[in-house]
Amino acid sequence: MLGEAIGTLSADDDLRCIIVRGAGERAFSPGNDIGEFATERADRAQAIEYGRVMHATAQALEDCRHPLLAQIHGLCVGGGLEIAALCDLRICGEGSRFGAPIKNLGLVMAYPEMAPLVRLAGVAVALEILLEGRIFDAAEAKDKGLVTRVVPDAEVATEARAAAQRIADGAPLAARWHKKFARRLTDTRPLTTAERDECFDCYDTEDFRIGYQAFLAKRKPDFLGR
Amino acid sequence: MLGEAIGTLSADDDLRCIIVRGAGERAFSPGNDIGEFATERADRAQAIEYGRVMHATAQALEDCRHPLLAQIHGLCVGGGLEIAALCDLRICGEGSRFGAPIKNLGLVMAYPEMAPLVRLAGVAVALEILLEGRIFDAAEAKDKGLVTRVVPDAEVATEARAAAQRIADGAPLAARWHKKFARRLTDTRPLTTAERDECFDCYDTEDFRIGYQAFLAKRKPDFLGR
Amino acid sequence: MLGEAIGTLSADDDLRCIIVRGAGERAFSPGNDIGEFATERADRAQAIEYGRVMHATAQALEDCRHPLLAQIHGLCVGGGLEIAALCDLRICGEGSRFGAPIKNLGLVMAYPEMAPLVRLAGVAVALEILLEGRIFDAAEAKDKGLVTRVVPDAEVATEARAAAQRIADGAPLAARWHKKFARRLTDTRPLTTAERDECFDCYDTEDFRIGYQAFLAKRKPDFLGR
Repeated sequence: MLGEAIGTLSADDDLRCIIVRGAGERAFSPGNDIGEFATERADRAQAIEYGRVMHATAQALEDCRHPLLAQIHGLCVGGGLEIAALCDLRICGEGSRFGAPIKNLGLVMAYPEMAPLVRLAGVAVALEILLEGRIFDAAEAKDKGLVTRVVPDAEVATEARAAAQRIADGAPLAARWHKKFARRLTDTRPLTTAERDECFDCYDTEDFRIGYQAFLAKRKPDFLGR
Repeated sequence: MLGEAIGTLSADDDLRCIIVRGAGERAFSPGNDIGEFATERADRAQAIEYGRVMHATAQALEDCRHPLLAQIHGLCVGGGLEIAALCDLRICGEGSRFGAPIKNLGLVMAYPEMAPLVRLAGVAVALEILLEGRIFDAAEAKDKGLVTRVVPDAEVATEARAAAQRIADGAPLAARWHKKFARRLTDTRPLTTAERDECFDCYDTEDFRIGYQAFLAKRKPDFLGR
Repeated sequence: MLGEAIGTLSADDDLRCIIVRGAGERAFSPGNDIGEFATERADRAQAIEYGRVMHATAQALEDCRHPLLAQIHGLCVGGGLEIAALCDLRICGEGSRFGAPIKNLGLVMAYPEMAPLVRLAGVAVALEILLEGRIFDAAEAKDKGLVTRVVPDAEVATEARAAAQRIADGAPLAARWHKKFARRLTDTRPLTTAERDECFDCYDTEDFRIGYQAFLAKRKPDFLGR
């Protein structure tokens, strides 16, 4: 469901930033519903079916054209940590807690879930989290490179909104190009000439005229996304 | 010798975590024995022979199936830093000191020694260490991403033991899979379907039944490693 | 012009470290001259010409054989941040400020400019900087992994000189090999045997004799660079 929603939003050219958050303020996500295992992931065959859905969700987040901001209240564990790692920015409260203690269930994190963690915080941090299985606080998550910013719990929504506004105030095409280029740089295949020159397309956009005029006039630009 | 010991331990399915430490508490490793150079590494030909042994040791650590935890008392310099970087977790004391000042000898760090440092802390940190050749303290090592955790010197053994216990309490197969997957993700070749689906094998293990039942019963699981 | 200067310096075997700094102490670089856009980057075609020069400069910094140290006074924004990221060490003052707010102009950072940022600080930090477009202080830059060291503003030149001296005191060939090896490790193609064995060439240098004798005599080595 999250994957489909993100897919729909990604196709909407009018969007400038998507905030991903949990329902309520108790948790971004407390992780998987363990009770569900008996019916939906009781063995390898079921788990493969379930995994296809989960990994399609991860892919939808990975492919989203618009900036994704995780607004993290409270617990951010297991599948929640994986979703947060797939967002572009992560803003959490001082009381947030993180971890992925699946080794206590005898389970392993799949490649499409581990790869974003490794990309975000490095192999050593990802392995520490999975091998020790500790639940740790926001300060440690920041220190480990897992979150962008930690604010007092009461200010998480305000700061997330402010960051989203800063992003939305920028030229939308620039944001999409920056996401696209950053993703491309995690791929090791050499860039084609066409790819290398794509960064110059922005000079022929209406938004560059708008941004440039606004800069000279010392006022805030009002971008149109074209 | 370290390489052979690790190779033997790696093959032992009953193991759950290996602690790597120096003899005594004065040093994890003070680096290479410089006096040895005159007899064992006096020129390029000798150095190549010596290097083959060193790099086989590095490879044995790299290939070890079980979690490796470096328990770092005191100095962790040169070859010691390289060994620590090849472990999965690194726990040191506040008085520990780090560095790789081989530029003072006119020598260079080989690829199999530099690669783990780069993977752990990034190219910029690895180069800073090698170009400046400074010896630095535990706080700076933590800040640079070289160690997992810094504790008071008197608590290094206790914390290393506690971390090893947390690791050993988890499902051993999950630990090995997590190590294998993390290592695989540092390789840029695309994953095969068989590789992508290996994460589902855990659902058919006895340990998953044990972990799941323990979770429902709210008791600690007692994993069997199968 | 910077690119040509670096190219010339790189070819000089007598050099041991290059300090890159701005004119005066107000800024390392305040970023691009926006007024210049009207005449030199008014559209895609002009921007491509301009970009070729910029990217040749980036390539010259990337290819420089000697250690590069960025001595950062004050502002380090946009193109300045990109140049700093292409250096090996970055030493700045507590009052320095960083950022790349080009999304306010509707422009995007090109691959050859973004790649060094991503290599230095990771994809998440690079994207945060580009998407939010904030200007941030030295402490945050350090926290993000963008600078090597922050010192009081009045001590930037002194610390940069001291670090350059530490680098220059080392064996110059070792410094060049370490830079070469570090760069090579960011390339994912497998190492050839010849490449793997290049690390042993240092054992046949005169500087190894000098370094080894100095170590035994407990005096500072006086390297010759051969």
